[in-house]
Amino acid sequence: MQLVADNLQITSPRIAAALRERDPEPIRVMVRWMEALGADAIDINSGPLSKNPEESMTFLVRTVQSETTLPLLLDTTNPAAMAAGLSTSRNRPVTVNGISLDPERLKQILPLVRDHEADVVCFLLNSDHTVPATVTDRLSAAVELFGRVTDAGIAPERLIIDPVVAPLIWADGKARNLELIDVIRQLPELLGFPVRTLAGLSNLTTGLTVSNEILKEKRLLESVFASMLVGAGLSMALINVGHTETMAAVKAARVLRLPGPFAWGQTGL
Amino acid sequence: MQLVADNLQITSPRIAAALRERDPEPIRVMVRWMEALGADAIDINSGPLSKNPEESMTFLVRTVQSETTLPLLLDTTNPAAMAAGLSTSRNRPVTVNGISLDPERLKQILPLVRDHEADVVCFLLNSDHTVPATVTDRLSAAVELFGRVTDAGIAPERLIIDPVVAPLIWADGKARNLELIDVIRQLPELLGFPVRTLAGLSNLTTGLTVSNEILKEKRLLESVFASMLVGAGLSMALINVGHTETMAAVKAARVLRLPGPFAWGQTGL
Repeated sequence: MQLVADNLQITSPRIAAALRERDPEPIRVMVRWMEALGADAIDINSGPLSKNPEESMTFLVRTVQSETTLPLLLDTTNPAAMAAGLSTSRNRPVTVNGISLDPERLKQILPLVRDHEADVVCFLLNSDHTVPATVTDRLSAAVELFGRVTDAGIAPERLIIDPVVAPLIWADGKARNLELIDVIRQLPELLGFPVRTLAGLSNLTTGLTVSNEILKEKRLLESVFASMLVGAGLSMALINVGHTETMAAVKAARVLRLPGPFAWGQTGL
Repeated sequence: MQLVADNLQITSPRIAAALRERDPEPIRVMVRWMEALGADAIDINSGPLSKNPEESMTFLVRTVQSETTLPLLLDTTNPAAMAAGLSTSRNRPVTVNGISLDPERLKQILPLVRDHEADVVCFLLNSDHTVPATVTDRLSAAVELFGRVTDAGIAPERLIIDPVVAPLIWADGKARNLELIDVIRQLPELLGFPVRTLAGLSNLTTGLTVSNEILKEKRLLESVFASMLVGAGLSMALINVGHTETMAAVKAARVLRLPGPFAWGQTGL
């Protein structure tokens, strides 16, 4: 079970300014912080990078790997930026985050995944970007994505499936999220190999945090939901490493899933 | 999802003394405390009660129900005590906790369950009291217990299955406990109705607590494991209501499983 830090985001004003000014230091500081808190991999969420996509992503990847050897996930909808990031990354494995059944995106991105021997996150979304309504629809999307990825000459073990966490404030958010437990458990048997899964936990608690009580509520629900998914077999948790309770829960859940002996006081928790 | 308090135990010196001296007050105090912390039901764990079983259990049940109307679970291996408890309990439903495939126990207890229209906890243990080694063995035990219970003229909806949490310090404790997630998910389909499940969480962290670090580790692992089981669909968590973190996690996990709308600040957490 890997902890993937989701903190390096263009929506962070500090990161946006660092990118704009080509100032590596704020990014390096964040990378050191994420690694110190226990990140096993780093997601570089650059956004669409409409200005200078190649140069911007190259700067981001170079800066991150000047500070760490952790694996990278590249999170941009811009194919030119993605290509530049994949070419620049020395940190391995590198992961394209991600694709869905959107046909144009499949056409643009799958050749890059194949040519760079990258891993690829596949979102269980309908081709119109909506979230499938049922477990069956999600599993159908997984089968279809598996077909597209392997048809493009990409090895099945490159595939990482993201069943897409819904915000709790959606009308049916809770029900959809409970389904993810079944989806995560059923995918390996359905696809016939131990396919990896990833979940972006921050989605769960999106919405304004207007009080300390709501902040506490958000952290608690996030940590409990994270435990549920790790218990179901989740391979990678995309997570804000600054969320202390969630990090503690995911690390503890990982201990419960580790093979081998157990001794109190020896878990590293 | 119900929270069943496991605190009223004969192994507690205060409770043992109260029972010996027929002093209701310490028991009432504990009942008030358990209810205030959010217990939905109370397990009366009297132990075997080799001396005055009927009178002792009658005292315990009368004392508890003088303070609360919460449903009771009666946890004793003594059939005479069980019969007395079932006859005394006005709080409904009342639950026999519990039976396994042990033939003598089935013969002694099932008629009581039927005659008192009680619910009954069925432990997924082999007939020699050992824990089944695999998911398949556990599910076979469930099917066999279901047969025994219904053959005795007890309605299926009276059944509550306890898949038996293993202590983490067992050589294969972690692996066995991960299997419970699958067992809990598969039972309703296997038995063909939404059978309830119960798990005794305190088993997980048995063993000496020699430091504050280990205490913290125990609470964290208990709360994370509880979240995993509630996520899998657990119906009843048998729990020490004094374990603040675990109670918070189980209540939050319950929120995630509630049908109906969701709003931040409205969860009661």
